[in-house]
Amino acid sequence: MTGQTIFFKNKPKIISAAAIAGPKECAGVLGAYVDCALSDDMFGEKTFERAERKMLLYAVQKSIEKAALTPEKIDVLLSGDLLNQIISASFTAREVGIPFLGIYSACSTMSEGYLLGAALADAGLIHYAVAATGSHFASAERQYRFPLEQGTTRPPQSQWTVTGAGAAVIAPEGRGPSITCATVGKVIDFGVSDVNNMGAAMAPAAADTILAHLRDAGREPSYYDLIITGDLGALGSRIVKDLVWEKGVDISANHVDCGEIVYKVVEDEFQGGSGAGCSAAVMNSYLYDKLTGGSGIRRVLFAATGALLSTVSSGQGETIPCVSHAVAIENEGD
Amino acid sequence: MTGQTIFFKNKPKIISAAAIAGPKECAGVLGAYVDCALSDDMFGEKTFERAERKMLLYAVQKSIEKAALTPEKIDVLLSGDLLNQIISASFTAREVGIPFLGIYSACSTMSEGYLLGAALADAGLIHYAVAATGSHFASAERQYRFPLEQGTTRPPQSQWTVTGAGAAVIAPEGRGPSITCATVGKVIDFGVSDVNNMGAAMAPAAADTILAHLRDAGREPSYYDLIITGDLGALGSRIVKDLVWEKGVDISANHVDCGEIVYKVVEDEFQGGSGAGCSAAVMNSYLYDKLTGGSGIRRVLFAATGALLSTVSSGQGETIPCVSHAVAIENEGD
Repeated sequence: MTGQTIFFKNKPKIISAAAIAGPKECAGVLGAYVDCALSDDMFGEKTFERAERKMLLYAVQKSIEKAALTPEKIDVLLSGDLLNQIISASFTAREVGIPFLGIYSACSTMSEGYLLGAALADAGLIHYAVAATGSHFASAERQYRFPLEQGTTRPPQSQWTVTGAGAAVIAPEGRGPSITCATVGKVIDFGVSDVNNMGAAMAPAAADTILAHLRDAGREPSYYDLIITGDLGALGSRIVKDLVWEKGVDISANHVDCGEIVYKVVEDEFQGGSGAGCSAAVMNSYLYDKLTGGSGIRRVLFAATGALLSTVSSGQGETIPCVSHAVAIENEGD
Repeated sequence: MTGQTIFFKNKPKIISAAAIAGPKECAGVLGAYVDCALSDDMFGEKTFERAERKMLLYAVQKSIEKAALTPEKIDVLLSGDLLNQIISASFTAREVGIPFLGIYSACSTMSEGYLLGAALADAGLIHYAVAATGSHFASAERQYRFPLEQGTTRPPQSQWTVTGAGAAVIAPEGRGPSITCATVGKVIDFGVSDVNNMGAAMAPAAADTILAHLRDAGREPSYYDLIITGDLGALGSRIVKDLVWEKGVDISANHVDCGEIVYKVVEDEFQGGSGAGCSAAVMNSYLYDKLTGGSGIRRVLFAATGALLSTVSSGQGETIPCVSHAVAIENEGD
């Protein structure tokens, strides 16, 4: 490890990726790229929580199928989610029967999963790992904010939790883009306590990790075709660009935020998408496609961000600690 | 990976361990071994949650100090806890400023931390990792069961969440016992839905992982001086011995459960201790001391168990999925 960054000698591959998303999400950019576009965000289930876990299960199974593997071939599932005690991930692990390591870094869980999967694959300790996460607007709202039935007004700085899930199969070798290095984030807290303003809370963590990554790797922002954040939204995206600019680094030319691009802003998503499923679905469909197709995008830095609060910590007057893990994904050709 | 088991080529070391526990816990075996025996389980804080996180912070800092290191030298903190969104771990990470990967497998979090720390160290990807977890009786009771003020009667199959925390520093080399291999658990659910009977729910996961480990490693139970579970309690401990016996394996001679030994059973702990802090405190004080001293105990299999339920999953009628990760810790002499 150099600074906060792990450099992978053997450049493990993301050999497949899969995603699923709800109808609101699929009205935007995701629609043409996900493996399953839901017409009903209940996904045939009776509760939001069961719908969320069914999406996660779908993404995990689909990523394995797209890698032409079976669950028995997968050594480890690295997964977590926003629900208390990461039940979506745990119940998904029960269904697929894959040895399971639970992870949690809120909406940065996808990049933590990529990072740990790449570390285990790079070391040759596993043959195949699946990294996965997801979220559901309705289960997140009632756990973190208010019951939907209450019809609470949303403030203009708020974001909309993405109903969706994504998963990827990581292996020491194979076809697909490589994870070449990864930066483990520190927990950063700028003192934001507004639970409706996640973008502002998380942007400093993204800035800290992106700067650490560029420093550790000795790279300029222009090394990457895209520097991708997870779900800062429109406001948070502007803040992260400002914060790194203050340190003499300009990412404005190639920064893109999954939360900012996920919706056609037509209704009340305000700042855009959020949730663990936001970057998971966008990375494992739209952006994976760009990375592996002829788009000209061959190097990306994926720095998803997570807000590590709970309703209890907020209720006890704490501010919002945040984290961002960054993963460099490079397509060096087949 | 062979089956579910990762074999570490370079045998990473647990170079230090530290633990802290509450007054009830220190009246038992822990009292003589922890680094800090609390006289007040509020630890000078105003809320149970803040007391829990202060214990975790203490254990992390003490483990680093005992390794003659400073937080700046630690590459990664691997931690999680029972509170929603693992706030104890996240806020601890904020305080120490160490790059942080959140993990969660309920009361098996300590063994997941050992496992991932060992994997990263074995691969030479890090110089030092800290693995840590903890729990607090009062914060767990009010989150998972009832407010203490309610004075709810506890059924005889219940356990008592340990107020305590433990941490260990893991490195590619140094003095201390080695983590030689580790078995990643599958999520096992035998259909138990009684949230007051965790031992019965978790015992099948422990049995599954212990059997997988012995099979993958080609070892007899007698290879180990101790086969340690985390917090099955007295009833769960009997169940796990029965379940592996049914498969033709006898661990009765060397099985010990941290939950069963942690208390002098004088009051209403009934089946013994539970909680992520149970095995964390016992392993990182009493058992680490035995492993590194002249006790004759030189090889242990540590298979902590976690119940992956939430109040929402139980409320929606789900049974309790459980997991157990096992880590082989061997003192091969200095």
